Amino acid sequence: MKLTILFGGASYEHEISIVSAITLKAKLSGFDLSFVFCDQDHTFYFVPSSKMKATTFSKGEHKKMPKLSLENGCFAQKTMFSTVKHKDLVINLIHGGDGEDGTVPALLDFFSIKYIGPRVNASVFSYDKRYTKYLCEAKGIKSVSYETLSAKEHKDVTLSYPVIIKPASLGSSIGVSIVRDESELDYALDSAFEFDNNVLVEPFIEGVKEYNLAGFMADGKMHFSIVEEPQKNEFLDFEKKYMDFSRSEQVLKADISEVLVSKLRTNFEKIYRGLFEGALIRCDFFVIDGEVYLNEINPIPGSMANYLFEDFKGCIEALSKSLPHAKRAKVSYEYIHSISSAKGK
Amino acid sequence: MKLTILFGGASYEHEISIVSAITLKAKLSGFDLSFVFCDQDHTFYFVPSSKMKATTFSKGEHKKMPKLSLENGCFAQKTMFSTVKHKDLVINLIHGGDGEDGTVPALLDFFSIKYIGPRVNASVFSYDKRYTKYLCEAKGIKSVSYETLSAKEHKDVTLSYPVIIKPASLGSSIGVSIVRDESELDYALDSAFEFDNNVLVEPFIEGVKEYNLAGFMADGKMHFSIVEEPQKNEFLDFEKKYMDFSRSEQVLKADISEVLVSKLRTNFEKIYRGLFEGALIRCDFFVIDGEVYLNEINPIPGSMANYLFEDFKGCIEALSKSLPHAKRAKVSYEYIHSISSAKGK
Repeated sequence: MKLTILFGGASYEHEISIVSAITLKAKLSGFDLSFVFCDQDHTFYFVPSSKMKATTFSKGEHKKMPKLSLENGCFAQKTMFSTVKHKDLVINLIHGGDGEDGTVPALLDFFSIKYIGPRVNASVFSYDKRYTKYLCEAKGIKSVSYETLSAKEHKDVTLSYPVIIKPASLGSSIGVSIVRDESELDYALDSAFEFDNNVLVEPFIEGVKEYNLAGFMADGKMHFSIVEEPQKNEFLDFEKKYMDFSRSEQVLKADISEVLVSKLRTNFEKIYRGLFEGALIRCDFFVIDGEVYLNEINPIPGSMANYLFEDFKGCIEALSKSLPHAKRAKVSYEYIHSISSAKGK
Repeated sequence: MKLTILFGGASYEHEISIVSAITLKAKLSGFDLSFVFCDQDHTFYFVPSSKMKATTFSKGEHKKMPKLSLENGCFAQKTMFSTVKHKDLVINLIHGGDGEDGTVPALLDFFSIKYIGPRVNASVFSYDKRYTKYLCEAKGIKSVSYETLSAKEHKDVTLSYPVIIKPASLGSSIGVSIVRDESELDYALDSAFEFDNNVLVEPFIEGVKEYNLAGFMADGKMHFSIVEEPQKNEFLDFEKKYMDFSRSEQVLKADISEVLVSKLRTNFEKIYRGLFEGALIRCDFFVIDGEVYLNEINPIPGSMANYLFEDFKGCIEALSKSLPHAKRAKVSYEYIHSISSAKGK
């Protein structure tokens, strides 16, 4: 199977996208893989498989590699006398900004490049945590209470401490802090506002049970991973999460009842259906008093959450055969024709 | 003032985008205008001002014009020996698919081209009427009750007749029907599902008062148009709406109280702030028993709702000076460097 892994991006998660891509290279060995790197200035480069190591990018060696441009149906590589067209199915592995905020999905849609990953609408509802709350509300999914703060207007926090402060639109725990009392608030807000003009405040629930579940739709039905109980170091800080993105060993199933597994799957499916088709996503849930709460949606999870699936290659193959097709509207000139002929032109 | 009007698109509203662009050409005379046409196959063409008439496109004459490609900061026009870069501020005037669904905004953001128009998030919340309902719910704005039907699963309509059936994601009344009793339902649903897999059902309220208000944010404050009471022919059919897109004469103010004007503005601002910055939008409201209900958001209204503003040119100038800047994240290789040096590489 042929696949192009698209990674990088002008994002705070640029580095972990590189780590993710390197991990997938190993995990999908046997596939015919190619690699397209999106640099921070939005230039695309074709990266030979042999150069897929982190230092290639940190040292800027990619700048000597062939540049690509987007054309209808492909990434085009222009040489002096011809154009090589890279037309393989793409995995969008750009984490965070660009990749998960809807920008790269829109580019791929516009240029009719087939891809695995969330579409524009799905990206908007998962990238900004405020919109994930709207989605939960609309779909009848529980999520913890929250309030929003904006960098532009001063507003007090009304939730009782401890609270957790999160930039509205970043993953990988960047800019996230736990605030135990008011004295710690300003510093936490400053850290969060560095990354986003909008911040979410949620109650911090000590020792809450957390479960991760990944899945995707193929052949008209949902396919789920095992449920993992992630190891917690209060919450995952960036460095820990960074290492997390290079995971490739299958993890152990969480020791939970079939009833709870089924509740988690039901909630996952409610979120997924009608919005996330084409993507393999991971949902992170809390369980409080036996009730399932959505914590967050990872529409492009680190290294595609490969470690949660028994047959990861099989999953990618199944998903690649069930991608949604963006219907392109047929254009007509019916009215212009009728008006022109009425005018005798 | 220099402006590029971007119009066309692979959309059911392709024709009305052409009409809109021709109308703006006249309305913005005196500005230094240029025109970029997006064909249904997603090729961009540079259109000389003298060729800006409807038949240019219906006859396919644009295909002989210079092709453009997207590059960092511009639409690039390549000639044999050089590249002309069109760098002017863009008005996104692609109505419907491509323009209003977030795709074109994402392209312009990605290539750092400045533009007037809704950003990706704003587009998603206004293009799909289901998501507009989510937004109303979250912002505490009233909207009429609704249910959704999907082409994939049979579900009965539970609202009482008459109801109005709308494709979830199209404007300009395309695929919209009023259904007075069950016998008319199947035909109406077939018409709507032709355009979208998801359909909204709402109560049809005979003789409901309807008011349109346009506005935008500039210099940190809202600027509103007059309020119009649109003429109704039960609801605007496509042909009527089509003619509507070529309006350029200023209309009369609706004869309503200052209190109602102020209520409409308050609701408009709740929708706009924090989401629609950079765009001039029109909101269509219902008023039922003195209460304001949002009917729909037009994030790129026909001919930019110029006919609702006294000094339309002044509005475009003010808006052009208050456009949001997409922050591009700074990329660091901190972790890769630290890991590499720990490994001694």
